Parts: sequence; C-alpha cells; structure tokens
Amino acid sequence: MPLLPTMYGPARLRELTVAELSELAGEIREFLIDRVSAAGGHLGPNLGVVELTIALHRTFDSPRDKLLWDTGHQAYVHKMLTGRLDGFDKLRKSGGLSGYPNPAESEHDLVENSHASTSLSYADGLARANAFHGHTDRAVVAIIGDGALTGGMAWEALNNIGGEPRRPLIIVLNDNERSYAPTTGAVAEHLAELREGRPVESVFEQLGLSYLGPVDGHDLDALLDVLHQAREQGGPVVVHVRTEKGRGFVHTENNELDRGHAIKPIDPRTGKPLKASTGRSFTQIFGEEIVKLVRARPDIMAITAAMMEPTGLLTLQRAFPDRVIDVGIAEQHAVTMAAGLSMGGIHPVVAIYSTFVNRAFDQLLMDVALHRRPVTFVLDRSGITGDDGPSHNGMWDMSVLQVVPGLRIAAPRDGTRLAELLAEAVEWSEGPTLVRFPKGPAGDDIPAVADFNGVDVLRRVGSLDVLVVSIGALAPVAIEVSEALRAQGIGNTVVDPRWVTPVRPALGDIARRHRMVITVEDNSRTGGVGSTIAQALRDSGVTTPLREFGIPRRFLGHGSRADVLAACGLTARDISLAVTEQMADLAAPPDRTDLDELDSGLLHLLQAHRNKEE
Amino acid sequence: MPLLPTMYGPARLRELTVAELSELAGEIREFLIDRVSAAGGHLGPNLGVVELTIALHRTFDSPRDKLLWDTGHQAYVHKMLTGRLDGFDKLRKSGGLSGYPNPAESEHDLVENSHASTSLSYADGLARANAFHGHTDRAVVAIIGDGALTGGMAWEALNNIGGEPRRPLIIVLNDNERSYAPTTGAVAEHLAELREGRPVESVFEQLGLSYLGPVDGHDLDALLDVLHQAREQGGPVVVHVRTEKGRGFVHTENNELDRGHAIKPIDPRTGKPLKASTGRSFTQIFGEEIVKLVRARPDIMAITAAMMEPTGLLTLQRAFPDRVIDVGIAEQHAVTMAAGLSMGGIHPVVAIYSTFVNRAFDQLLMDVALHRRPVTFVLDRSGITGDDGPSHNGMWDMSVLQVVPGLRIAAPRDGTRLAELLAEAVEWSEGPTLVRFPKGPAGDDIPAVADFNGVDVLRRVGSLDVLVVSIGALAPVAIEVSEALRAQGIGNTVVDPRWVTPVRPALGDIARRHRMVITVEDNSRTGGVGSTIAQALRDSGVTTPLREFGIPRRFLGHGSRADVLAACGLTARDISLAVTEQMADLAAPPDRTDLDELDSGLLHLLQAHRNKEE
Repeated sequence: MPLLPTMYGPARLRELTVAELSELAGEIREFLIDRVSAAGGHLGPNLGVVELTIALHRTFDSPRDKLLWDTGHQAYVHKMLTGRLDGFDKLRKSGGLSGYPNPAESEHDLVENSHASTSLSYADGLARANAFHGHTDRAVVAIIGDGALTGGMAWEALNNIGGEPRRPLIIVLNDNERSYAPTTGAVAEHLAELREGRPVESVFEQLGLSYLGPVDGHDLDALLDVLHQAREQGGPVVVHVRTEKGRGFVHTENNELDRGHAIKPIDPRTGKPLKASTGRSFTQIFGEEIVKLVRARPDIMAITAAMMEPTGLLTLQRAFPDRVIDVGIAEQHAVTMAAGLSMGGIHPVVAIYSTFVNRAFDQLLMDVALHRRPVTFVLDRSGITGDDGPSHNGMWDMSVLQVVPGLRIAAPRDGTRLAELLAEAVEWSEGPTLVRFPKGPAGDDIPAVADFNGVDVLRRVGSLDVLVVSIGALAPVAIEVSEALRAQGIGNTVVDPRWVTPVRPALGDIARRHRMVITVEDNSRTGGVGSTIAQALRDSGVTTPLREFGIPRRFLGHGSRADVLAACGLTARDISLAVTEQMADLAAPPDRTDLDELDSGLLHLLQAHRNKEE
Repeated sequence: MPLLPTMYGPARLRELTVAELSELAGEIREFLIDRVSAAGGHLGPNLGVVELTIALHRTFDSPRDKLLWDTGHQAYVHKMLTGRLDGFDKLRKSGGLSGYPNPAESEHDLVENSHASTSLSYADGLARANAFHGHTDRAVVAIIGDGALTGGMAWEALNNIGGEPRRPLIIVLNDNERSYAPTTGAVAEHLAELREGRPVESVFEQLGLSYLGPVDGHDLDALLDVLHQAREQGGPVVVHVRTEKGRGFVHTENNELDRGHAIKPIDPRTGKPLKASTGRSFTQIFGEEIVKLVRARPDIMAITAAMMEPTGLLTLQRAFPDRVIDVGIAEQHAVTMAAGLSMGGIHPVVAIYSTFVNRAFDQLLMDVALHRRPVTFVLDRSGITGDDGPSHNGMWDMSVLQVVPGLRIAAPRDGTRLAELLAEAVEWSEGPTLVRFPKGPAGDDIPAVADFNGVDVLRRVGSLDVLVVSIGALAPVAIEVSEALRAQGIGNTVVDPRWVTPVRPALGDIARRHRMVITVEDNSRTGGVGSTIAQALRDSGVTTPLREFGIPRRFLGHGSRADVLAACGLTARDISLAVTEQMADLAAPPDRTDLDELDSGLLHLLQAHRNKEE
C-alpha cells in the first residue's frame, strides 16, 4: 500500500521505519516526475532533496522548529510532506500551489524566497528572537545551496552567526555543486576539498561555526544521524550534505547543462517539451545578437550572475569562452566588477533578470553611474513573469532605475527593436545603458509607419484624439487599444519612444496635438515611465490630460502572464473602456477644420522628417 | 627643511631614504591635524594610514598601477602625496577638494567610494581587464579596512578572486579593528587570532589567496618589505597590516568611542568643537525617542549596520545593551535579519543612513514587504547631506522606496513630528514603515494651524490661489515661499501630509479648491513624492495644474547643505519666482465671490473636522 497518500503532516514521518521512509522517497520521486512534468517547474532541485527533506521533517518538529529553504524552489517535497499533495494538480497556476514556500499556504512555510542567500539572515533573526524570549527548545534550520553560498549576504550572516555570543542555529549546506550550472569560484573549490575529505579545517570553523560532514544526502540513515547530532550540539553548526541534482529521473540526470533545474511541461517518457516552442523569445534573440556584437567588437564582454543559459549567454560561452564571465549568484559583484572592467577598457554587458538587479541597485548607482561608466545592462524577465509568483516579477525596474543620473533605458517592443537598441546601447560611451524586455516570445515585428524625431509612430488613425504611448513589449496591446478606439470613432496615434529614459522631447510635440494621452507599460504605475512622461509634459507646458496604465502598487499572485496582466487591467478591453469613458468627460473638441489642420500639421512634420532623413 | 612641500607627486617618494620617509610621515600627521581640525573631516582613519600610504606609493607606480581605497575616506594622505596639498584649504567645501577620491581631481583617483566593500570588485574587474589585454606589468591594489570586510560584496569578490584562474591582485587589509566602533563578528574574531599569531590557516588561504603578515602598519621598513614581496609574488595575495586609527594625535587616540573617525571643525589644542552646537539634531531626537519606546515596549529592538553613534543609538546601547544589535557594515543582513526578528515576535527598528539603504533595496522589498513584516526603518541623512559629496546624499529614498507595496513613508518636518511619527510607525502592525529626515538641526517646531483629515495645515493666507505641499524638513522653505507669495498678493495654503506614501486622499480635496499646486521635497524630482501626488490627483479627477520642486536628476557636487540646495533651485526665492511666473500664465480666476465661497468651504471643512475630533 502506498505511503504517500497517508502523509497528513510531518508527524506521520515519525510513525515510519527507515525502510518505509526509503519507500516513501521512491513514491515522492515518482509523484514529482509525474506532476512537475505536467505543470512545469523546478524538477531538478527537488529530485535532489527528497531524502534530505524527509530526514529534516523527521528530525525537527515544524512549525515549532523553523525550516528555511534557500532558495525556496527546493521546497516541493516539503510541501508534499506538509499536507499539500492535492495542490500539485494546479502547481504554479492561478489559484493553485505556489512554486515557492508561501506563508498563506501553510503554517510550515515561513518565507517566500526565490532570491538566493537570504536564509541565514532570517535564521539569525529568528535565533536572536528565540534567545531573547528564552525559547531554548525551538530549533532554527536553514537549508542553503552551495550556489546560494556565493551570494554576499550569506557571508554577512555567517559573520554574525559565527561571532560571539553564539546561538543555536543549524545550517544544512545542500551541496549539489551547482546553481543552474556548476558553481564557480573559491568557495566551490573549498567545498570540493571538503567533499574529497582532505584534512583542512573548514572555512566555517574559522568563522566560529562547527562543521559536520560531508554526508551522503541520499543515505537516510546517515542523514538522520548527522541531523540528530546537529540538533543535540546546540551552537551554530554547518551540516555539509552532498546531494545529486535531478536524481532518479533519466532526463534530468542526463542533462549536463542544468540537470533539469526548471522545466517547461514535458512528456516524462521522452523528456521532450509537450508544446512546440511559441516562436523566438527575446532571450534567444539577445543570445544571438550578443554573439554578433562580441564577434564585431574586441572589447565587449558579457557577465552573468550564475545564469548563463537562462539569460541566453550559452551560445556566446561556447563560441567565445574568454568573453563571458560567470561570477556566481553575486549581483553586487557583477555590477561593480563590470565598472572595474570598464575602467580597464572593456565594454561589459551585464545580463541579469529584472528582479535580481534590485540586489545591485546601489552598485549600479554609485559604482557605475557616478563614474559614468559605459556598462550595458540587459534585463530579461522584466515586467510580469507570472507563474513564478510575486518575487520573480520584474515590475519595478523602470521606476527604480529611472532615478539613476545618466542612465539611458530602452524598452524594445519586438525582436528587431531589441537588436537595434542593444546595438545602440553598446555604442553609447558617455555612461550606462539598459535594455529591458519580458519573458517569452518576442512575437511578430511591429514596424514603424514613421519616425518622428526618434519616436516610432506605429499607427495613425482618424482625428488626433488619443495619443497612445506604448512602452516596450506591450505594443500589441497598444495596437489593439488603437483598433478598439477606432471602432468607436475615436481617432488615435500610437507611438513607441524606444528609449524611455530620459523622456524624449518629441513626445511633448506630439502630445500637445492630441486631446488626451495614455501611457501603457508593463511596470509599476507608481514612479513609472508614464508618471515621468506626465512630469516632462507639465515641464514643457503641455496641458493635454494624461492617464497612466501600468501595474498597481501591490504584490501579484502567481498565474500565467496573460492572467496576471488581465488582473492588473492591462488588456486592450479594459484600457479602451477607461479611455472611452474619460474621453466622454472631456470638453468637446475644436471644430473639425481645426482638427484636420492639426492632423495635417503632424503629418507634415512626419513627412518633413522623412525627407530630411533621405 | 620640510619635505612635504616638495611632494610634487608619488615619484618623489622614490628619491627619499627610509629615514626621510619617516620624517615625512611626521610632517603629514602635523598637516592633517592642522587642516582637518580646521575644515572637519575623516581625521582618525587618515592618521592611521600615513606610513601605509607612503609605502604603497613608494612601492607601486600610480597611475599605471591602480590603488583603490575602501572606503575612500582614508585617501587624504594619498591626496597629499599626489600633488593636492593646496586643496586642503578648502577641504569638502564648494569648489574645493573632495573628502573622497575623485577622478575629476586627479589621474591617481580611480573611484569615488564612500560606500564600503566595493574595492575588491573593482579590483577583480581591473585584474581581469589587465589579463585580457596582456598587461602583465600593471598591479592592482585594493586597500580595504577590516570593517569593510564585514560587507557581503567583499566576499562575493573574494570568491571570484580566489577561484581559478587566479590573476595578480593585491589586497591590503588595513586592520584597525574598527569601522566607526570596534568591528564585530566572526571575521573580526578570526583577524584577532591572526594578529595574535595563532598557528591557524587564514580564511583567505582557504579561499585560494596567499596571506602575508600580520605586519605593523607604522613600521615603514616592514611595510616596504611586505609590499615588495606581495608585488613579486604575483597571484592574488592578502597583506594583513595592523594600523592604529587616530594615531599621533592625543584627541583622537584618547577617543575610545570612534578615535576621531569623522570630526567637525575643532580646536586642535583642546580637541573641542570650534562652533557651539546649532540646536538639537534630528539624530539626537531619534536617539532620545527610541530609548523611550524601548523602555515602554518590551518587544522593540534597534539594529545598526556598524553606525551605533552616527545613527543616534549610543544612548540606547548604554541603557539597554540587549535591545540593540550591530551587524557590521552589512545592510542586506540588517534588513533580512530584521524580518527574521519580526517573525520571532520582535518589532525591529532599523536605523540607517538613507544612502546606505540602497544596499538593501531588494531585502526591504522581498524579505520585509512581501511578508508584510512590521519593521520600522529610520533613515537619517535623507535628502542633501552636502559636504560628503555625491555618494552620501540621500536624495533617492522616497522615489525608490515608494514603489514597495505596503510600505508607509513618513517625512517629519521638525522634532515634534519626528517623535510623533516614529511612535505611529512602531504602532503600525500590518507592514513596514519608514521615517526619513535629514542631517543637521531639527530647527524650531512648526505647529499646525489645523488638521484636515490627517494633513497638517501649516498656513492659510488670502485667496485659494496656490497650494504648497511641503514634504518633510523643507517646511521652513515652504513657509518662506508662502510669505513671498503673500507679499505679491498671491493667496496660498501650506500643508504637510506627514505620511507621504501612500498619498493622502485629503490632498485631492484641498488641491481642487486651489488654482495651482506645488510640491516641495528634498528628494529626486524624478519619481518623487510630487510626481506621485500629481498621479493621485489625476486619478481622482483633480485638474489643478501642479508643479514639482525637488532635486534634479544628476549627481551633486560637494558643498554645504545650503549651497547645494541653492544650486538645485530649492530656495524660497527661486520657487516663489517660478510660481509667480506660472500664475501669471494661468487663466484668470473665477470672480471673488466664488473664491470666497470656496475659501469658506475649506475653512468649514477644517472647522468640521476639528469639531469631530473634540
């Protein structure tokens, strides 16, 4: 009789023999392969921690004892053992189970952390609170990957945890020798020495912690022993556990690239994606363009923070291995090291997810921009990513980074624009540049019908009623809005400024000829591009009413990108409805003759510009 | 004959004997004490690195070899040795020498870094660029304090520097056992072991670097020897140098608090400040209020990142040592550890400079706000700080942090408001709060004449022409603007929303009764409070024209706070002039009867609110 369905909660583990636990491990792997193949998600990391998670929940008494997963994508087994088996049917879908721990789901989940290296800091805070309250019977356990240990804040925490006075705290080092790809750097080399049993003192011991291990992370007896020992020991201790990412499934074990780190839905028999690819993604296009740029210019180098493949740099790495640097999960270092490279005559291209650039805001501002270093940042997964939930959305980048003096920000609407803007970005030598785009397919190209002083005019229909300023990849929505307005007899113009920061003066010239302006962006409304365009228009005396469409000031639940955009009102239907309502409230337009005159004025300007270009 | 005046550049050092270098060291100390006493500045750190700086410039050939100071406040001696003696007459004043390295001043200055722990990342980038270009003859030298080594990004860099392939790079660990105050944590304990010569391997060796030392940082012979050895050795090496902060000046040597880390102008004979204190500072008031709160509530704890005294927490530390935590120069850890404390039932108050909270933006967003933790942030040195230059201004906090969902931001205008808003902040249990204030005296209290749905009305004169929304400590400027407008017959109302994020709905009710709105903030205009108020007014259908006054999108040179504010146009004269001009352009007001009616409408509302309160 299968054991998995009887897992009402972690206490159940203490009713089973070790042999039964081992049986359970097999059932868990089968379940994981089945469910994650169907839904997509972090398969590899979870196949690696099956025995470890069983041993942790058998040894410790969650939720009295606190288990912190770093990062949270290795918590699927933890979810299965804490009464959430059913939720896997809707894994990472709207209304279903989150792909990370989620305090709203279970009292066993403390934090949702998809950003690495945080667990030791949470743990230090919890251990200090336990000590302050005299809760000597409560354990705090952080499970941290060797990859997450390349992030600086883990060392800030170790400095605190290892110093006097020492408090009970258990660090389980889940060493699978990888983040996505093999972990790089001195820490990884040191861990390799420890794994090989060379008689060195560990770096942890020199920083005031005890060290236990290394132990085989798939040997339940050994795990139960060492965790028991750690629990008894009290003071801060590192338990070094060797695990095998992707273990127990041929298609992850044989994947030398990332051992099935994060998969799309696949057929578990073949390991092949269930759906054909939906066209070229922005990531792929960036990956191709960066190779061309590196080939053409001997001074360009790319930098990644442990995400070679996910950011599209794999082809570059294979073609020009000395022109790409993986610094580990170390965004701060990536950015300031890039400033150093730039001072040494290199033009660095830092490829990073939008959500992770927040880790290096200070470095971008103080180390790159203050020194006017021509470093190019390429932000993938900008805007709403969707199924990875609130901590993976890149919905703040333009708001936060627009304050950086001298930083120029581009938001390409399609693949051709990505190629063009990236090329312009690396040509700029007076300061930093940034190109941001979302997850997913780049879609069909949307050519400009005219260029108005650097602003692309995408569409021009009817009277000059509404100016739609489309930012980046929401251009298809902007075009749909235009069509919906036209259908109601509302004339409009759709433009894309391409470079969104600083604001293009031409936007003012166009805006003043319309009766209303709307901005559409896949970014926070608060302090967003729209709000800054509004400020620029006011500064230049343009009084046309403006309305910004963007992401509201709240954390967004997980779901498909389309679902989440819809929940934010970022659909053509919602936007055109709001515009129609507001247009009805506006004063009647000047008579048609006037309008036609203005219209031909704009057309004349467009025409004049085209003539000048030729 | 004195040697110091002959120091045309670092090459001069190579013409001198060691005995003469020692003489020079004495002259440098005398000069430092004299000039920094007069101007104010980082005296203690520079008195500690006199011999070290001489030995570095004698051994290495700047600017071909690169010297990186971490942090840059220890670069005064470096400036003296690179031809900038004269500049010390106007140290840290407008048009004078900067208090940090400054590439605009000298080819010997590579980076301006007042934020700690960056040097190893710059150095890694430079060393990689040297290797790529085959520049085998160029040395890269980072001089990093033991305090700066508690910052995580230094460890991200060590992970890269110590890993394969290793490149030539010299790390001079300037170990004075302090940041401001004694360095805390496991790294400091490890360095103490090394200083005492215990036969342990160093943590650096385990991370793949060589280790030389410890050597006496005031022994020129020993320094020249060890630096020569490091230079010859090639591969990455740490030179552990013991220095004494504040050495050679009785008033810094005897200052057990911070050994004269950063002084105001003093009389060098007595060590006493030249000017009497200019009234209580915001920092002092916070220091007093936090003691009261900790005394009143058993669950409040304060956290500092190595700045106990500068953030005003010293009194608390002395009165309640177990209620305040110093985590080292580790802002990321400070913030996430606070989230952990909060999960353990503590209400943490994180006291930090505005400029340093940028280091922990991601942690504030993802680790605190996403989990709705009631953590209170207290940002000192918000807005323009002035004499510490571009990297110390806290001019972005409200722009950047307003995007954080659920974060409530308060900007007190005076000492009484600081006390009130801090008390309100720690009472809020549904998410994080932030209270921000500038450097310097809190000035006289500015009482409200009325409260309008939570918005303080500070002044109400004449017709309802201009609404002045005053943010935080620029209230005195706003009052002056009001007076200047009144003198020209322009009626106005001055209000202070106290809580600036989220925007108070009452502002819309007041704004719609005026002909023009201006916002005045000591913060970036781009994405600032004004721009968000403008958005909120548009959202609620208020069409009153609005103009934001704030700090332009550029880095600001050093100078007094008043000078820098004036350079940004943030004076009553500039603001009122601009408003008068714009008012002249506005359509004529409705007739007086209407206006009076509106006026009495507002007064009625104010009155009604007061009655309700009573």
